[in-house]
Amino acid sequence: MQLANIDLRLAHELDDQDELAAFRQEFVIQDPDLIYLDGNSLGRLPRRTISHLQDVVQHQWGDRLIRAWNDGWIDKPAGLGAKIAALIGAQPDEVLVADATSINLFKLALAALRSRAGRTTIVSDEFNFPSDLYIFQGIIDLLGGRHQLRLIPSRNGITIALEDVRLALGDDTALLSLSHVAFKSAFLYDMARVTELAHAAGALILWDLSHSVGAVPVDLNGCNADLAVGCTYKYLNGGPGSPAFLYVRKDLQQELVPPMWGWFAAKDPFEFDLSFTPAADISRFRVGTLPMISVLALEPALDLLHEAGVDRLRAKSLRQTEYLIALAEQWLLPLGFSLGSPRRAELRGSHVSLRHPEGYRICRALIESPPPAVRAIPDFRTPDNIRLGIAPIYTTFTDIHRALERMRVIVEERIYAQYPTEKLAVT
Amino acid sequence: MQLANIDLRLAHELDDQDELAAFRQEFVIQDPDLIYLDGNSLGRLPRRTISHLQDVVQHQWGDRLIRAWNDGWIDKPAGLGAKIAALIGAQPDEVLVADATSINLFKLALAALRSRAGRTTIVSDEFNFPSDLYIFQGIIDLLGGRHQLRLIPSRNGITIALEDVRLALGDDTALLSLSHVAFKSAFLYDMARVTELAHAAGALILWDLSHSVGAVPVDLNGCNADLAVGCTYKYLNGGPGSPAFLYVRKDLQQELVPPMWGWFAAKDPFEFDLSFTPAADISRFRVGTLPMISVLALEPALDLLHEAGVDRLRAKSLRQTEYLIALAEQWLLPLGFSLGSPRRAELRGSHVSLRHPEGYRICRALIESPPPAVRAIPDFRTPDNIRLGIAPIYTTFTDIHRALERMRVIVEERIYAQYPTEKLAVT
Repeated sequence: MQLANIDLRLAHELDDQDELAAFRQEFVIQDPDLIYLDGNSLGRLPRRTISHLQDVVQHQWGDRLIRAWNDGWIDKPAGLGAKIAALIGAQPDEVLVADATSINLFKLALAALRSRAGRTTIVSDEFNFPSDLYIFQGIIDLLGGRHQLRLIPSRNGITIALEDVRLALGDDTALLSLSHVAFKSAFLYDMARVTELAHAAGALILWDLSHSVGAVPVDLNGCNADLAVGCTYKYLNGGPGSPAFLYVRKDLQQELVPPMWGWFAAKDPFEFDLSFTPAADISRFRVGTLPMISVLALEPALDLLHEAGVDRLRAKSLRQTEYLIALAEQWLLPLGFSLGSPRRAELRGSHVSLRHPEGYRICRALIESPPPAVRAIPDFRTPDNIRLGIAPIYTTFTDIHRALERMRVIVEERIYAQYPTEKLAVT
Repeated sequence: MQLANIDLRLAHELDDQDELAAFRQEFVIQDPDLIYLDGNSLGRLPRRTISHLQDVVQHQWGDRLIRAWNDGWIDKPAGLGAKIAALIGAQPDEVLVADATSINLFKLALAALRSRAGRTTIVSDEFNFPSDLYIFQGIIDLLGGRHQLRLIPSRNGITIALEDVRLALGDDTALLSLSHVAFKSAFLYDMARVTELAHAAGALILWDLSHSVGAVPVDLNGCNADLAVGCTYKYLNGGPGSPAFLYVRKDLQQELVPPMWGWFAAKDPFEFDLSFTPAADISRFRVGTLPMISVLALEPALDLLHEAGVDRLRAKSLRQTEYLIALAEQWLLPLGFSLGSPRRAELRGSHVSLRHPEGYRICRALIESPPPAVRAIPDFRTPDNIRLGIAPIYTTFTDIHRALERMRVIVEERIYAQYPTEKLAVT
């Protein structure tokens, strides 16, 4: 994007042309001077979720009580899974809402390793979310240390070369598991080509879609992907810590043996047999009872995503990250910032990392400056990444303009120097 | 209890004498003619939870957004764990709110087995909740079939003899894991003596407190219990599927290695190191992000339990189950019912199972009879158990009288015969 000017008027014009602009009204935005650029970490509250949860709590739980399970709760993990499936190119019976992302990763990665006995390597990359790597390390420890974890390095700190993926794979590779979009740099893998490489090596592939679902089109079936997990509290706006999802391609559902045989993974949970018989379908990857208030909060949020449409959201996201980077190049790079995300749009998810040695204090200043200063909420990822998340369903070009202008002021006037370097518990 | 009479007036008198009677007002009870006897499966909605969740959703999520994590969310799994600890005789830093009961059982049982290498048996009983048994079966499968599960039989279908526990234990026993209160018969183990037997055999013990926490006094520290898990949506009234808890005795926290190394189990999750370093405390048994709306719903419910006090709740529960059994003996046993729970109060949790060959249809008739009939909601456990749950914090003697009288009418007049034998998805 070549910016004709960096005037706020251009931002207003771009907002006026935005076909998705009306969706912003669907979210609770109490303070228009608080710019939220952390939808990649916790999505905003959809207005319709408020009334939905009132019904869930007061009517479904309060009045219907245990009967609500037969009214529909029992089918929600599959039903909401089907709604997620439609966002990620999967069949309705290939996706399940369940547990937390790391727990689902444990189930699927361990099942994958067991199905590839004889192969001893898990391949991932140094960009993967550490929780994913920790889960693999725990599995390796659990299996007696016979396996190893190999991390594909990045040559430039921002992207991973396809050639390096290929080099890391071999006939010892049981599983390739990667984040589709990297949590720091927002690097976006070519899912089709990487999946092909994994299969060519005889390995299974497991995608973590946490930073792509709802923001980037995903076509699991089209890529013939084996397994996937993902998070619903980022671009899906499901609420804090809302339950995660898992995908198992249909033909693998009976082949893979999950490690946690909870009652909801059984063929007939309410028969209460003393011996476990697994469900024949994807339910076998369930474990126990899910936190239903948090599960049910997902439904209006998913409906909203479908109304907006992932393709339109991606198109807007690309315009917005381009706009953000163009402003950063004009205003911030001369002040000691560097771009921590791919410059090429097709390699980028929906957030942009700007790096600065004082990144942490700049974040604090952005978030905490008292009025009348504009406040903006990004997040910080060690050692120096300020992550600016674009949630195209509610982020405006004006938001981006105002936030970046404020970043410029904070650095030019050294406002960040008033803020502590000591980190809060959650950054 | 010898009933002077079985008149409804006695029930009213007992309610008038009830020092906990005022707590019933703390719950949403829309229809006084709907008698709820399934608080052992899904507790009622506390009134204060409604306003609390409005604040959680609209203010904490909606307005505070990601900042709410530093406002207090991040400490809730430990803080609410401490509130549960005070109900079960544990130290504040020995209990954690986390995931689902079956997932917590998987973590602790697997860690226990690994710490008792060389011992190859898990001992449980045929009364244990099948999900617990399934989890053990899955672990045995995962570990290559070198372990076995031994189930202590019941001699009478209602209780387990302490002698039979002793006989099942041996120097091959790695772990003894039992439900403190059995889900069908409500049989209550003597935790102190059973724990002693496990330790005498050199085994670890893992208690499932799902059917006792909040209804029966539990003294984990006093019994020197090693491990425990439990559920919060029954007598704790945390809401449908509300997150579970786990207990690990302080001195075992560093010895045991949990299998799922999620980021919240790490020493410094927000350092995002590529290698896992476990937290030194009970946090190492965490995995990923918890569903915070469901987690936060627990707080007002736990406060309410503390205000009522477990000892007072237990005393009332015993009076109520005695009263229920006395009415059943008078009215129902002559009609083909049998008592499926221990007759002796000290062997019984807070629900009573009444068995009848037409149990399922009697349940359906109780729940579904149209007005002006009294409706009552118990639940059914195959093959013939009608479970009548006493939640002393809101159940009245009048509730019990009316429900049992209705059961009598349903059987005497064969009203159940109008209902289907085909089961609903959730019984």
